[in-house]
This record gives sequence, structure tokens and C-alpha cells, in this order.
Amino acid sequence: MNLQQMGQAARDAAYVLAQSSTRTKNNALLAMADALEASSSAILAANERDLTTARDNGLDEAMLDRLTLNSARLKAIAQDVRNVVSLADPVGAELDSRVLENGMRLSRRRVPLGVVGVIYEARPNVTIDIAALCLKTGNASILRGGRETFHTNQELVKVIQQALASSQLPQAAVQYISEPGREWVSGLLQLDQYVDMIIPRGGANLHKLCKEQATIPVIIGGFGIGHMFVDASADLVRAIEVIDNAKTQRPSVCNTIDTLLVHQAVAEPLLAGVSVRMAEKGVELVADSAALALLKAGPAKVRAAAEGDFDTEWLSLTLGVKVVSDVEAALAHLRAHNANHSDAILTNDILSAERFINGTPSAAVYVNASTRFTDGAQFGLGAEVAVSTQKLHARGPMGLEELTSYKWVGQADYLIRD
Amino acid sequence: MNLQQMGQAARDAAYVLAQSSTRTKNNALLAMADALEASSSAILAANERDLTTARDNGLDEAMLDRLTLNSARLKAIAQDVRNVVSLADPVGAELDSRVLENGMRLSRRRVPLGVVGVIYEARPNVTIDIAALCLKTGNASILRGGRETFHTNQELVKVIQQALASSQLPQAAVQYISEPGREWVSGLLQLDQYVDMIIPRGGANLHKLCKEQATIPVIIGGFGIGHMFVDASADLVRAIEVIDNAKTQRPSVCNTIDTLLVHQAVAEPLLAGVSVRMAEKGVELVADSAALALLKAGPAKVRAAAEGDFDTEWLSLTLGVKVVSDVEAALAHLRAHNANHSDAILTNDILSAERFINGTPSAAVYVNASTRFTDGAQFGLGAEVAVSTQKLHARGPMGLEELTSYKWVGQADYLIRD
Repeated sequence: MNLQQMGQAARDAAYVLAQSSTRTKNNALLAMADALEASSSAILAANERDLTTARDNGLDEAMLDRLTLNSARLKAIAQDVRNVVSLADPVGAELDSRVLENGMRLSRRRVPLGVVGVIYEARPNVTIDIAALCLKTGNASILRGGRETFHTNQELVKVIQQALASSQLPQAAVQYISEPGREWVSGLLQLDQYVDMIIPRGGANLHKLCKEQATIPVIIGGFGIGHMFVDASADLVRAIEVIDNAKTQRPSVCNTIDTLLVHQAVAEPLLAGVSVRMAEKGVELVADSAALALLKAGPAKVRAAAEGDFDTEWLSLTLGVKVVSDVEAALAHLRAHNANHSDAILTNDILSAERFINGTPSAAVYVNASTRFTDGAQFGLGAEVAVSTQKLHARGPMGLEELTSYKWVGQADYLIRD
Repeated sequence: MNLQQMGQAARDAAYVLAQSSTRTKNNALLAMADALEASSSAILAANERDLTTARDNGLDEAMLDRLTLNSARLKAIAQDVRNVVSLADPVGAELDSRVLENGMRLSRRRVPLGVVGVIYEARPNVTIDIAALCLKTGNASILRGGRETFHTNQELVKVIQQALASSQLPQAAVQYISEPGREWVSGLLQLDQYVDMIIPRGGANLHKLCKEQATIPVIIGGFGIGHMFVDASADLVRAIEVIDNAKTQRPSVCNTIDTLLVHQAVAEPLLAGVSVRMAEKGVELVADSAALALLKAGPAKVRAAAEGDFDTEWLSLTLGVKVVSDVEAALAHLRAHNANHSDAILTNDILSAERFINGTPSAAVYVNASTRFTDGAQFGLGAEVAVSTQKLHARGPMGLEELTSYKWVGQADYLIRD
């Protein structure tokens, strides 16, 4: 295997996909879904090999569960592919169009990005997920999964490529880097002659590696400290429900809150209620001095915040609490503590709301709602490729449109420039 | 001077700019334009120091001319700043908005990128140009100009910062890295904690350096082989005018054509006309064997194409010529020869036109028009920050909107996720 050859093959495949009708792409997706079910036994056998190795290497239960496929999960994955068929194909639509003074009709037409490189960890469903979304948008993909899922991914990609061939689409539309070794990742990250975008799906270290080594645009995302600010004018009773939802509905994901900021004017009554609810939910509070003074009387477990606590993405049943003087102080805290993902204000004050919306560094900002909505499905995007916390190309949940670019199209009558 | 401090100061300034009204930003721009004219003598004196050094270092006339400021040029630069005032401010507009099933009003609101880093060569007007466009869009900028313009840029930035201060905007909204040494460029390229986007304005080596060293998204652009394909159905008389315009109107710029592709069915009559016109314009032709056979009888200077000629961006009065069998062969040539900037087809065949539009790798594709239109002013963008040849964030001429990002805004009535 040779990265240059893979890149060239992907590029060539991308030109074919860019010319393919939505019907052709959808038929390939349906063939892919059917093939996944038809090849169930081979895929599960390969997955069993990975699981055996994983157990021998002593991976923990959570890891093993993420690795595991069974016929039910495989059926669900196939169904997800069929759902992608039902989504609108963004390619070919015109973003805008005008006629210039000189008579040229100028428009911007949506086109596929070309070749997308994806580097990810454990979960084998990502292989199918990304391959399907890239195919739908006319992009070729080069995949590099974690070694824990080596055999499973091999089998999945074999099935995908057979489905592509049966649909008269180039097999190189979806390629997998099977060689072990970090140098293959570095090589992919610098294949800028052929690859248009890199999507890392994994932890902070993977994103750091990509940022440092890539000569290709990288979509950075998935981190950030989540904040909720309760303003003086908030409904303190309903606020408890939103705080609870944002913290405890699914503590391990990135759109939960890590820090609760409370306006000093309502700190006492609000934190009394917060302590009761958080105690019920088993949430430990980490409070600044002002909040600690109000919370230590309450039922919830609480400790004084230490250096770095307000910069910690808890991903667990822990919640930072701080009393602030007003919305400006809340914004100052957000800016100082890496708020770039999802943050919320609870308020009935129209000026505070606007101030907070415009003042946050967040990719997604909410007024009187839980931060848990930052999600492609919740936003109605139909599919989610990644959640970007950078500002270029795309920000927040990325759907199919974010897998496209545009080209300028100028049409005229033998027009020359004066 | 310390890059971390500059970055932090730029970030803080960016928060102030993001909250500033268009009126405040416009007043600062007007103050900037007035100050440039008021400080004319100091600026020209500094420029004279740079010119003296440049002459001592034996820079060529073209280089010296790009370096030179005089009161007329300074007036023009000030006027360009006033023109930016008249442009619409894209910040704050909503890209789209919908109400979700659960009642949340979800929209995407245009926001400044934050901090933009710009690395450029010779021309001092770039300093004012970029500073003004970034200020208009609420972005802080960190500038690094070529050492040939060291004193001029120092003076220009001093004037800009005084204008900012007089308009109650932070001086750190526009900062300049005055220290010599490559390590400062590398440092800026890795200041990802504070800088959101890097715009290199210069040659291929600068772009390569940025791609390799940056941990920040970089806008790559300004290169690419330009092609014009004359299809069998083209108007061969008017075709000559468009070819002439695309090649000779301004041979040294990136939106001219480097290669003329001719459908075999019309090669003989077209190339006869091309040879006459190119001879008149002093253009040397570099032809493949089929084209050479037809051209050697003509008046234009012609030689056989050698290895690499069709991969050469001439930026001079030289034109590659190749006979191809059809539009597919033309597209195959484009794909093999780095067509990513501006390309055109001359045709009266609607299917060939669509085929070419969708099949080119170009950022800008034209039907029956010169490639010379790829330009922010020509496209009516009002201003041009750069011409991107990459596919992410922005492609082709970048105007004020391309200096912005968006944030998701969700507004509801204490809504929680089920």
C-alpha cells in the first residue's frame, strides 16, 4: 500500500462521484446497507477477533462495549445508512446568483469537497457512518480507524467496496489505511496534494497531533467548558429543571455544562434549590468562596474550587459553581475559561440575553434552554459529521452541507474584461 | 515584544470590536483615512528610508516600484479606506433561522472570526488594506510585513493605532510584529490559542511555509494553471477576442490563462487566427505536436512543448497550446495540470458547458467569458481580502463576509432535552 497511490485513486474517484447523480449515489448506499446485513456473519466473526485481542490486552468494559458489534447493532447501522438515502443531496444547488452590470450571470454552485480523510478511534460504526455521509455528498474518503477495530474495519470496508462496485462506482471512493504505525497517520495528514479536509474523531491528543502535523485543513472540535449563567431576572423554579437537564441527562458528553454561574442577586435562593436537586442526582459541587458559603448548609456534596477546576471538562457528575456580579462578569469568566462549545443564559431580560448572545465565544449559545441541544439530529441537520469548535468552514454541528464547498460559475456572451 | 502578550491583547481587542457598532467602526476607519493624509510627510519620510535601503540592496525596479509610496498613492490608499466605510457590515446578520418542532427558535448569526494573522511581502498598501477590512468586520489583526517595508509599516501602524485610540477603540485591534527573524513568523503560525485564521499574501514559498508550520487554519491561494477550452461549437471569431483578453490584458496576474485547449474539429481554423493575433501581441506559443503542426505555418513564434510546460504558470506573454479530442479530454488535461484557480470554456453546446462547469477542479469557471474576471471588485464583493484556491471556508475571491464566521443561537422557553 502506498499513500500517494491511495491519494491519486481517491482523487480520481472523487471526480467520478462529483459527476454521479443523487440516484446513483443513493443506490450505492442502499446496496451498502443490504450488503452489511447480508455479510453479517463475516463482519461479526471479524469483530469477535478484535474483541478477543482487546480482552487479552485488558481493555476495560466501556471500551469493549464501544468495540462490540452484534446483529442488532449491525441492523441499526444498516438502517442509519438507509436514513442517509432519505436526506436531500446538497450538491449542485446554487448558493446565490446575480447578474453583473456587464451582463455576466455569476453564481456560486455547491460542489463536493473532494477527498476527506478521517482519523478515528474505537467505534466501528464510524467507518460506515463517515463512508455513507461522504458518498452521499460526492466525496471520496480515506479512513484510518483505531487498531482495536482492525479486523472489523477491514471487513466493513470490503463490504462497502463490493457495494460500490456493484453500483458501478469506483471502489476507491472509500479506502482504508490498514498498515499499522503512526507514520501512516502523519503521511495522511500531509497528503495535501490529494486530500481536501481532515476530520479527527477522537480525544484531545488526536486533535493536537492533527493540528501540529497536518498540512491540510483540519476540523477541530468536541471540546470546551460548558457554562450556564442564571441572570437576576431568571425564573428560579424552572431554572432548576434546565440546570438539571444540562448537567445530568448525559454527563459524559461534550454538550453538558461544567460550570454554573449565578447572578449575586439571586444566588441565595437559586443555590438552595440547586443543592437539593443536585443532592438527589448525586452531583458533587465545586464552588468558589461566595458560592461555598451559600452551599455548605445544603444537602449536596460540595468542596472549595481549586486551581484549574473551572478549566476542567468534567464529563461526570461534578459541577462547578460561581457567583458573579452581572452578565459582564459572567462573560469575562466564559472568555477566561475556554467557552467555545455550548453555553446558555437563563434570563427574562432582553438586553442581558442579547449581550450574552453576542458576547460569548461559544459555537452554540442558548437563551432559556439546555445546552444539550448542540447536536446535528437535534438541530434537524439529519446527520452529523462532527461538531466543530473552530470558526472556519463550519462551526458547531456539521451536516451534509458542511461536507461541500462551492465554485463560482460565470456565464456570459463572449465577455472580456475592459 | 512577546507573541503571547500580543495574542492576548488581540483577543481582548477582538471582544471589544465584536461588540462595537458599525458606526463606531466606520468612524475609526474615517479617522484612519484622515490620519493617513495628515501624517503624509512622516509616512513618506519613512518610506524614503526603506527605498534607500532597497536601492543599496540592489532591488530591481519592479520591486522598488511596489515599495514606493508618494502623496498620490497615499491619497488613493486613504480613499480606499473611505470606500470600506461605504460597504455593508456583514456582522450580526442571520444566515438562516427556523423554529424546531420543540419550539426552539434556532438561527445562525454572523460573527467576526476574532483574530486574523496576516503575513505579506513588499507592498505597504496591504498593511492599510487588511487592517481596514479586518476592522470593518470586527476582527483584530496581527500583521507581519516584509522587511523591505519595515520603516513604512512602522509608521503606518503608528498612524492606525492613533486613529483607533482617538475613536475609543483598543490600539491592539491592529498590531504589527516588528522584530526581524523567521522565528517570529513561525511563532505567529503557531499562536493557535489566540489567532483564528492566517492569510499569507505572497509567493508559493510563503504559502508552503504556512501550510507546513501553521497550527491555525491558513487561506491558501493565488496559484493555479489557467485554461481556456475552445469547443467545436464555439464562435471562432469572437473566441480570438476572449483568448486575447485572458492572455494579454495583464499577463503578470494569476487569473490569466496559461494553456489554450482546442477541440480537434476546429483546431485548424482557430489556431490560424490565434497565431495572427498572438503574433501581433508578441505572445510566444508552446505547442503540443498536433498544435505545432498547425501553428508552424503561422506568424506567431512557436516552439514544441517540453516536459513541464503545461504545468507552468507563465505570468508572461507565453501561451501553451494543445489540441484535444473533446470536452472530456479537456477536463482530463485540467485535472492533470493543477487547474484550481480560473478556467473557461467557449462553446455554444449546452451539454458541453454543463459538463465543463461540473467537471473542472477550478475555484472559478467561466462559460463564454474571459478568466480575467476572477477578482473581488469584478465580482462586486466591494473588497478583496485574498483569492482562495482551497475548498474550505472560502473559495475564489474573498470579501468581507469571508472575514466572518457564525454562531448558532437557540432561544426557547426554559426548554430541556427529552
